[in-house]
Amino acid sequence: MAKSTDRTMKFEALNTEFEADVRSSFGKQQVMGWIGAQLTKVEPGVCEITLPYKAELTQQNGFLHAGIITTVADSACGYAAYSLMAAGSDVLSVEFKVNLMRPAKGLTFMAVAEVLKPGKTLTVVRADVFAVDEQAKQTMVATMLGTMMGMKKA
Amino acid sequence: MAKSTDRTMKFEALNTEFEADVRSSFGKQQVMGWIGAQLTKVEPGVCEITLPYKAELTQQNGFLHAGIITTVADSACGYAAYSLMAAGSDVLSVEFKVNLMRPAKGLTFMAVAEVLKPGKTLTVVRADVFAVDEQAKQTMVATMLGTMMGMKKA
Amino acid sequence: MAKSTDRTMKFEALNTEFEADVRSSFGKQQVMGWIGAQLTKVEPGVCEITLPYKAELTQQNGFLHAGIITTVADSACGYAAYSLMAAGSDVLSVEFKVNLMRPAKGLTFMAVAEVLKPGKTLTVVRADVFAVDEQAKQTMVATMLGTMMGMKKA
Amino acid sequence: MAKSTDRTMKFEALNTEFEADVRSSFGKQQVMGWIGAQLTKVEPGVCEITLPYKAELTQQNGFLHAGIITTVADSACGYAAYSLMAAGSDVLSVEFKVNLMRPAKGLTFMAVAEVLKPGKTLTVVRADVFAVDEQAKQTMVATMLGTMMGMKKA
Repeated sequence: MAKSTDRTMKFEALNTEFEADVRSSFGKQQVMGWIGAQLTKVEPGVCEITLPYKAELTQQNGFLHAGIITTVADSACGYAAYSLMAAGSDVLSVEFKVNLMRPAKGLTFMAVAEVLKPGKTLTVVRADVFAVDEQAKQTMVATMLGTMMGMKKA
Repeated sequence: MAKSTDRTMKFEALNTEFEADVRSSFGKQQVMGWIGAQLTKVEPGVCEITLPYKAELTQQNGFLHAGIITTVADSACGYAAYSLMAAGSDVLSVEFKVNLMRPAKGLTFMAVAEVLKPGKTLTVVRADVFAVDEQAKQTMVATMLGTMMGMKKA
Repeated sequence: MAKSTDRTMKFEALNTEFEADVRSSFGKQQVMGWIGAQLTKVEPGVCEITLPYKAELTQQNGFLHAGIITTVADSACGYAAYSLMAAGSDVLSVEFKVNLMRPAKGLTFMAVAEVLKPGKTLTVVRADVFAVDEQAKQTMVATMLGTMMGMKKA
Repeated sequence: MAKSTDRTMKFEALNTEFEADVRSSFGKQQVMGWIGAQLTKVEPGVCEITLPYKAELTQQNGFLHAGIITTVADSACGYAAYSLMAAGSDVLSVEFKVNLMRPAKGLTFMAVAEVLKPGKTLTVVRADVFAVDEQAKQTMVATMLGTMMGMKKA
């Protein structure tokens, strides 16, 4: 019986420097520093980005704006995909879809992305975004399903 | 540490007749019978639909057409959501997104849906679609992320 | 002032045989014949598919199943993209998202797709699906936004 | 013949104060001020938001980050939907999908949203995002299709 929860796959990195390359590219995304996001995990096919709450990032009710949730989820998806690409690649987002499930309130937010299907050109990635409260309780507030594209670095 | 794979949640059905109601509604979806799909599992928040390969359901290369993959994934998502709704409800699809990951070739196809977030009005559901070959090997060929809506049955 | 409605663009076909190639590929999609869909328009970057109502294609309330709406919308998107590809190409769906806006009831359904952004590898396409009633009144029942991929024909 | 480009519909606002209410809510979205976005048009069912380029909002290649594009597109969609809601409502994003079509380079970016289908609970909205260069030339860089939800203001 197939279980949809069996789907976490183990992938091997083609690029032995994948972690350094992900960290270097993340460091060039000025928006990450500007919102205060940190790269808290990189493994082959997996990436986690953590963002502390800031009032400057909110929508009309004081919750994190859906676009900011998307910003961290998209970078997490991009770098999860990038971790499996050949050395000398660059990664771009083709498209993504996000479901906002609960109000994004919390002390910290964590976007956890995992590759579903790597590919030479296109990689399919999923990310869940969790809000973390004072008691370290995690609640899923959003989920992304997206397509990332690898290309030769310019 | 949150793992995105921790996300399978256990839900309790509000409607003690949920399985009979799902099966009854599935029986009224004429398209399910017409394409040859069968309801092979219903649990609270989970639904699985199985479809044998038929040449009549294919695209130009002889693979299952993306719209037919969507047909079974959408019904699986709808009934996963419906299984958690109050008695006397009906379910409709609001929207969904599908990533086609590999050519849909196989003897049989299985759409496995699980609720991510149930709600009074809207339920967020994910489904993976697997192709099953002669050796019973399963390969994920597509994944859906969608939103289902509950309403009073007319 | 940019208006989002200015977006219909005129594209030129690279393949002088684009219409014959689209019609030939459509003819190989067995599912089109099986559900009764017809290719009613092909222009560079545009494709329209028409599907008469059939009870065999319905969901539990007698409306066209969302997956069948998707089937015609996806083929319309695929062929709108294909019409702009080089000779000797094949087209596959990478992903799509569909919003179901109204119950799909009508005598006939029409999926009208137009390319938003052609590309060597990826083409972004949108399709609207209209229900047509006895008075030839058209109502938009669904819309698709998707990504199609061109590749060398095997 | 239905043309997908016939789809711009005219809607009437239920709330005579719709523009003031949209502007008031926009003013409470701290993230809008923080990134430098301005509300440049509000009409019944339509909303436009303009964002000047800032290096702080970029990804690794110096283009606007996809999440920031999404931030303005999502607010434009939300307020296009909100403009058609009854007085005393609030609006939340249920979900959206974004296709990134070209690198987001430009002096200014404009997200133009229009309602496709208003509803008591759910409203379907589309937004296109244009980059504007030094010669005021507009290029579509992204498009969003999303679902917004109206609720009683808390």
